[in-house]
Amino acid sequence: MRLERFWAEWGCLIWLPYSEKVGAGTMNPATVLRVLGPEPWNVGYVEPSYRPDDGRYGENPNRMQLHYQYQVILKPDPGNPQELYLESLEALGLNRREHDIRFVEDNWESPALGAWGLGWEVWCDGQEITQFTYFQQAGGFALDPVSVEITYGLERLMIPLQGVRSVWEINWDGTHTYGEILLRSEVEHCVYDFEQANVDRLVELYNLYEAEARSALERGLVIPAHDYVLRCSHTFNVLDARGAVGVTERARYFARMRDLSRAVAKAYVKQREEMGFPWLRKMGERKVGRLEGWKVGKPHLPVQPAAFLLEIGVEELPAGDLTSAIAQLKELAPNLLDELRLDHGPVRVTGTPRRLVVSVENLSPRQRDVEQIVKGPPARIGFADGQPTRAAQGFARAQGVPVESLEVREVDGGQYVVALKVETGQPASAVLAENLPRLIAGLRFPLSMRWNESGVTFSRPIRWIVALLGEEVIDFEYAGVRSGRTTRGLRPLRSPELTISRAEDYFTTVEAHGIVVDVDQRRASIAEQITRLAAEVDGTIPDDPALLDEVTNLVEQPTALRGEFDPKYLALPRDVLITVMKKHQRYFPVVDESGDLLPYFIAVRNGDSEHLDVVRHGNEEVLTARFADADFFFRADTRQPLEAFLPRLDTLTFQEKLGSVLDKAHRLEKLAPELGELLGLTPDEMETTRRAVHLCKADLATQMVIELTSLQGVMGREYALRGGESEAVAQAIFEHYLPRFAGDALPAGKPGIVIGLADRLDSLVGLFAVGLVPTGSADPYGLRRAALGLVQILAGRAVTLDLRRAVSMAAAQLPVPAGEEIQAEVLAFIVQRLRGWLLEQGYRYDVVDAVLAERGHDPYLAAQTVAGLARWVERDDWMDLLNAYARCVRIVRSFEEEFPLDPARFVEPATVALHQAYLEARAQVTPQSTVDELFAALQPMIPAINRFFDDVLVMAEDRALRENRLALLQRIAALPGGIVDLSKVEGF
Amino acid sequence: MRLERFWAEWGCLIWLPYSEKVGAGTMNPATVLRVLGPEPWNVGYVEPSYRPDDGRYGENPNRMQLHYQYQVILKPDPGNPQELYLESLEALGLNRREHDIRFVEDNWESPALGAWGLGWEVWCDGQEITQFTYFQQAGGFALDPVSVEITYGLERLMIPLQGVRSVWEINWDGTHTYGEILLRSEVEHCVYDFEQANVDRLVELYNLYEAEARSALERGLVIPAHDYVLRCSHTFNVLDARGAVGVTERARYFARMRDLSRAVAKAYVKQREEMGFPWLRKMGERKVGRLEGWKVGKPHLPVQPAAFLLEIGVEELPAGDLTSAIAQLKELAPNLLDELRLDHGPVRVTGTPRRLVVSVENLSPRQRDVEQIVKGPPARIGFADGQPTRAAQGFARAQGVPVESLEVREVDGGQYVVALKVETGQPASAVLAENLPRLIAGLRFPLSMRWNESGVTFSRPIRWIVALLGEEVIDFEYAGVRSGRTTRGLRPLRSPELTISRAEDYFTTVEAHGIVVDVDQRRASIAEQITRLAAEVDGTIPDDPALLDEVTNLVEQPTALRGEFDPKYLALPRDVLITVMKKHQRYFPVVDESGDLLPYFIAVRNGDSEHLDVVRHGNEEVLTARFADADFFFRADTRQPLEAFLPRLDTLTFQEKLGSVLDKAHRLEKLAPELGELLGLTPDEMETTRRAVHLCKADLATQMVIELTSLQGVMGREYALRGGESEAVAQAIFEHYLPRFAGDALPAGKPGIVIGLADRLDSLVGLFAVGLVPTGSADPYGLRRAALGLVQILAGRAVTLDLRRAVSMAAAQLPVPAGEEIQAEVLAFIVQRLRGWLLEQGYRYDVVDAVLAERGHDPYLAAQTVAGLARWVERDDWMDLLNAYARCVRIVRSFEEEFPLDPARFVEPATVALHQAYLEARAQVTPQSTVDELFAALQPMIPAINRFFDDVLVMAEDRALRENRLALLQRIAALPGGIVDLSKVEGF
Repeated sequence: MRLERFWAEWGCLIWLPYSEKVGAGTMNPATVLRVLGPEPWNVGYVEPSYRPDDGRYGENPNRMQLHYQYQVILKPDPGNPQELYLESLEALGLNRREHDIRFVEDNWESPALGAWGLGWEVWCDGQEITQFTYFQQAGGFALDPVSVEITYGLERLMIPLQGVRSVWEINWDGTHTYGEILLRSEVEHCVYDFEQANVDRLVELYNLYEAEARSALERGLVIPAHDYVLRCSHTFNVLDARGAVGVTERARYFARMRDLSRAVAKAYVKQREEMGFPWLRKMGERKVGRLEGWKVGKPHLPVQPAAFLLEIGVEELPAGDLTSAIAQLKELAPNLLDELRLDHGPVRVTGTPRRLVVSVENLSPRQRDVEQIVKGPPARIGFADGQPTRAAQGFARAQGVPVESLEVREVDGGQYVVALKVETGQPASAVLAENLPRLIAGLRFPLSMRWNESGVTFSRPIRWIVALLGEEVIDFEYAGVRSGRTTRGLRPLRSPELTISRAEDYFTTVEAHGIVVDVDQRRASIAEQITRLAAEVDGTIPDDPALLDEVTNLVEQPTALRGEFDPKYLALPRDVLITVMKKHQRYFPVVDESGDLLPYFIAVRNGDSEHLDVVRHGNEEVLTARFADADFFFRADTRQPLEAFLPRLDTLTFQEKLGSVLDKAHRLEKLAPELGELLGLTPDEMETTRRAVHLCKADLATQMVIELTSLQGVMGREYALRGGESEAVAQAIFEHYLPRFAGDALPAGKPGIVIGLADRLDSLVGLFAVGLVPTGSADPYGLRRAALGLVQILAGRAVTLDLRRAVSMAAAQLPVPAGEEIQAEVLAFIVQRLRGWLLEQGYRYDVVDAVLAERGHDPYLAAQTVAGLARWVERDDWMDLLNAYARCVRIVRSFEEEFPLDPARFVEPATVALHQAYLEARAQVTPQSTVDELFAALQPMIPAINRFFDDVLVMAEDRALRENRLALLQRIAALPGGIVDLSKVEGF
Repeated sequence: MRLERFWAEWGCLIWLPYSEKVGAGTMNPATVLRVLGPEPWNVGYVEPSYRPDDGRYGENPNRMQLHYQYQVILKPDPGNPQELYLESLEALGLNRREHDIRFVEDNWESPALGAWGLGWEVWCDGQEITQFTYFQQAGGFALDPVSVEITYGLERLMIPLQGVRSVWEINWDGTHTYGEILLRSEVEHCVYDFEQANVDRLVELYNLYEAEARSALERGLVIPAHDYVLRCSHTFNVLDARGAVGVTERARYFARMRDLSRAVAKAYVKQREEMGFPWLRKMGERKVGRLEGWKVGKPHLPVQPAAFLLEIGVEELPAGDLTSAIAQLKELAPNLLDELRLDHGPVRVTGTPRRLVVSVENLSPRQRDVEQIVKGPPARIGFADGQPTRAAQGFARAQGVPVESLEVREVDGGQYVVALKVETGQPASAVLAENLPRLIAGLRFPLSMRWNESGVTFSRPIRWIVALLGEEVIDFEYAGVRSGRTTRGLRPLRSPELTISRAEDYFTTVEAHGIVVDVDQRRASIAEQITRLAAEVDGTIPDDPALLDEVTNLVEQPTALRGEFDPKYLALPRDVLITVMKKHQRYFPVVDESGDLLPYFIAVRNGDSEHLDVVRHGNEEVLTARFADADFFFRADTRQPLEAFLPRLDTLTFQEKLGSVLDKAHRLEKLAPELGELLGLTPDEMETTRRAVHLCKADLATQMVIELTSLQGVMGREYALRGGESEAVAQAIFEHYLPRFAGDALPAGKPGIVIGLADRLDSLVGLFAVGLVPTGSADPYGLRRAALGLVQILAGRAVTLDLRRAVSMAAAQLPVPAGEEIQAEVLAFIVQRLRGWLLEQGYRYDVVDAVLAERGHDPYLAAQTVAGLARWVERDDWMDLLNAYARCVRIVRSFEEEFPLDPARFVEPATVALHQAYLEARAQVTPQSTVDELFAALQPMIPAINRFFDDVLVMAEDRALRENRLALLQRIAALPGGIVDLSKVEGF
């Protein structure tokens, strides 16, 4: 009721839960339809949200199949939605000073709704309490204006407000608890959704709903159609929770729902358009037409060299975007200054989630002048008797310089009349005002968004800009924001406005307000704090630079705190606990000297240490809920052996044409042993491989892995061991996913290697065969990583494998054709990754290419060969060898025909000697030889080659003679075949 | 939001609209399930309520397929729910002083939910704004405790609050109107529900929902099952709006839904019971166990004769119940006083909707003493020598009287010792305190209800009792209410407490506060006011005592007001306008001198004339909405000829086994002409009959009649005329329903008569054939009225018809067997009605029975005959005739055999003479003769009969002689056969 009052008073229309079961307030027409089109719309309402999959039979403290959302839509963006939101929390009694309230990157996408947006999940003491999204697209329509969607999780808000440990304990009305009202029906819904719902009938219902939706759409009946779409969606969700959606159906269901929702969206927009978008009239002061992306203010007069400061104030940037933006600015900012001919001292670029900062010392007040020489007529024409001719006078006039200033200079090797033109530097403030927008606009992000009428895109909305040169504001407008000298303080302190008098004062000013602007300082401070807190309980923090970097980018004023959790959870697998802490909560785990987990975690709060106990308590509760969830999964999963999960894999799509994950697993069960034979596994290893490959994907159907995908393999190993599988089998299951990321370990055992290879080969060949070749930066199936993994395993584990054969074996298992052409593409794709991997190790590209041309199909062999060749090309006598060999190759290169060799007809001694040398080398070299063997064989030939070319004219007029000589050279040229293509080596 | 706050502060749990489409907030589990069982439950929530049938394509100012309810459940009854409710209205800004807020009887029943309750619709200035119900039963369970259900109609509340004319104009949020937000989807839903929904698919959906509900119930899953029941219900509603529910299906759908909802209710109660009804602990101060129905307080000491006053303060009684209660008290109260031996002056009984008043003048302070005589031993045993014996002494001891007081008196014809015992009268206050509860408990109502733990039933809750004898309170408790001296003032004045010092002051006190307690005074006042207001616009009020009586019983302080309506509505049929005004609004219509309606109405407000303009305005708006609705129907109905509605009759159930109304109409099309032939209609009349019977039921499918059932026939005539049918056909359509109620006109034309007879015969025979014979006071199909109608038409229109034949003709048309036995039952049933009708006209029951025994099958003939016989039995010489005839009958009555008559063998002159007299009479009498003809023929036989019995011994020993004499007497006895059974006449 307080939220309702807050938003009503702000100007939202108060709406109601919808009369259909929805998964989220987003699906209420008040959101999913009203965000479409140009009309303004501000609304707030509660929405009971049904998500069958989240059902836990009431056993989890805050995860349920039904939860209550409070949904707010602000369209267009009012400019200060985060502030409004924080005010609304205070209306509820959630003080931002007392709690750690954070905006943590979280983007939202619903392909089924043709919708996506960027934003955050809002945390209160580690607990997600709200989703905050700038809606970019819905129903397949780009949204203009953009809507701000604020979705409060009401139960999770109540937990800190009432200081209870679980939603079930929430006091609803002073008389009943939440559990008393809802627990029973929660359990009933779980039983229904997971156990009782009749699959055939639900499928029928879905079909009937769809047919009625289409029928309603035919009449242009938007809401009746939408209602049926919602029923489709809920019915699908129940079917899914019931484990009843097979692979083919799933993709088809999604496509069907997407089609329907787009059609509904289209019909709605059409309807509003036909009505003339009547609410546009309600926009009041809304400006008509678009703001321009940027505007340039009046420049200030030139000043003395001074400090320059640019601060781009933003809503919380994703951690990765912050890192990326700083890196980009480190390059772009100096480049810009150079381009603008602005001399300057050191450039410092840094930032926090809410500000990107570029600071430059001693920036010149003006651009450097530049002198330009304009070439005129030749001197002999321009001057006659030392006097300018008419031609020179005309030239001077045309160039706008006094004729007296013309000079004669040597240009392009001749004497010419030239005009010397000096371009006077403009004031720095002027050119910066013109160019800083361009600097900001030049930043690129993997995902960027619009938010206001300017149409500008950025990682997150830009809300203020500080741009100072010394004491002066560099005046411009970008993304609807006017630059100035006002920055904002910390969120917990209500983001007070801070005035920066002079650019030089920036860092001292914001730091005085508690903000640690510098990334490195923040990182160091966090590292120090967490180490200290861990030490207090005789623990240490496992090294995790990625986590440290991420946390550094999530706060402006880091204050670490140590929380505890119930030691009983230590019974869960370590990886589970760490993953939960790190991935869900960005907590640092604490371990003892033997590396075992201690029942502590360290969180980093954004803010100072006031009310730290409240924040700690909140975080502890959240972690408890998370662990309870993990415990629920773990218990559920271990009720049956790992093998029992296999049938469920049929409900997981691998790819529509390639079948389910179960289909893939069946392919691997054939492919892995074949590869094992190829690699000469022992009978023991083969047996392990067979068992492990049978089970290797089973954990994907366990609840733990469904919830925490990154634990695939880890849980497989865990559950396999618990189910009595051998250590070797369990290890192979785990290892077949290795390496999972850059720098990850490689599989150690042969079974893990073989299964890992099989898995990646199946994916690569299969997905290429169905046309899903990665393009540009898109690689949804992770094929680049798969190919690189292949390379790393083979090279790293010294496994020789002819990928041509392996690819062909993989192709043979597929349910779709994958002919030679496809196989060649796959091979080329892998070789590209191999090339990149070799180059990264510092090998010369020519050396790499020379080897890959011959041995790319066998990464380990190629890597060995590259290493060998690299040593050779560094030798002082290398060019002798290369030159000699090159002479042989160059002369035969143009002949396609292979000439017959008749040694009997060699006449010159040089030829005979060369032939003899060839025969000796030939005897030592095979296509399998190492480069050392190759060059050891070639080196003795050098004199013979050189003598041959000195003594013999290869291209004799006598054809027989000539061709016989060419035949010999062809054979010499072919000696490195299968080893290296020396023609690709530099200097050839 | 204000309502929500109000009820939250009062202590209600705030709940939310349900995630399924429901027809009313009642169907939300927070009501329909939580009212079950003993646990307390107080809740408030909004409920969007979907009623496809109410869709008007957005064309009505306040009728839509979707409206918003605010639903409150108070369980148990807090004792003052009406006051709470009125406070909540004031929280909304609806002041009871300013508006005319009324509780108008409206009971609620949902056979499909196995639920019913008693209560009111609450009117604000004539507009229904709330349903207020004491829930008595739900899911087939009697509710204990009873729940108070308050259902606000939010839109209708907003209309007076915002002073708008239509819901569409409601300002929702300061920016949008209700229409802007909802009109489009309203229209879409109408199009979908009425035109687009696919019937086959919806039927499938219904079946699937039902199957899932059953499946959920098998697992005891209450809420999932209930959700599916709700879907069944909404799906059925759409099917129904779509006009797609055939006769057989309808009944079956209802039965299916009822079964399901009962099963859900049962499962819920079982579940709560298994949980130990945990919320019982929340009842706080709730008393354990039941209050007794009544308690008797400490009696006061006797006083002087004084006035007695009993006021039973109630929540608004239904108008009929008020009349009935007054009538009952007029009988019961004096009887009680007499029984209690309390001497008293005049008794006055009167009342208003909120109070029943019994006032008695000069009530004796004590009961009269009584003397009792107890019979002892015979005098001869009790007294010896004038002295009491031991026996007498023992008797005196046993009776507790001194032996000296024994007397001897004649008892039962003998001399006995008697004891004289005087029972001393008790104080009046004591015996009244004991017996007044019994007086109240003795009142009976057609429907009565429970409301609190006392378990007492009454028409509506009793909220206070004033019981005074002079200045003293007669102290007792009934229905949890303690008697006292405090009554309540008018609702518009917040029902202030008024103290009655002395019984004598009662009327002056309450009248001083504006209450017109006396029914007759109120009626007279209203009559005077409405006449005056009508006269001001040169109009009069058509005489309508029933309406005047009803209105008199709806108010405590009547203030009439005259409103206007747009004269354009005068284009609607007069009956429509009058029905709407009278039936829906209890308004008095105003007509000019020629009887035409004027564009005015007169409403009677409960309260004084303050703010009368507000009330007038509100009432005008309401009537406008009503007329707009009627106009909508009228226009919709007249878009097609009456005949076009016939196919829709197939969707109206007549009775499951007897088919749809269309089936019935088809039967009438055959039966009516057959009856016409029987009654000798002219060819013209036959033609009119054929056309009229074809169309006679068509108007039942028109929207106007669906909405205003009482206009059946009226609209048929109207639409027939507009569709070009002849005046005679239109009239017959109208007349076939006549008489519709006691005192209504009879059909004038033969076609109307014939169709009316056919209609009633079909119903009677058909419903008897399927076993739906009326029992007790239940007569859901109105068969008693139908039979009486038959009688009235035949008798009133002098139509001779042999019902035996007519019934058999009707039976022949039925789709079910209706053999002789059934036909006989039907006939007997009609004859019963005929008998009642004749008795009501003052005929002697023996006369009636004598005629009906012979002519009951022909009501007109019977009525004529009764009239004739009635004249004869009044004649002085009647007994001569009867005696003579009776002598003949008595002697032959015991012989079943009919003896052959052989006149040749008569020997005695007396016998021959009698035979001769017989032959003469015989020649004049047939079974079709009138009684006059019969008796004219019989009278001359009297001497012959008497002589015969004087002269002849009938029972001669000679068998042949004896039987020949008996044969003659048998024939004489049979003479009145077919005319009258004289043996039933008194004195026979």
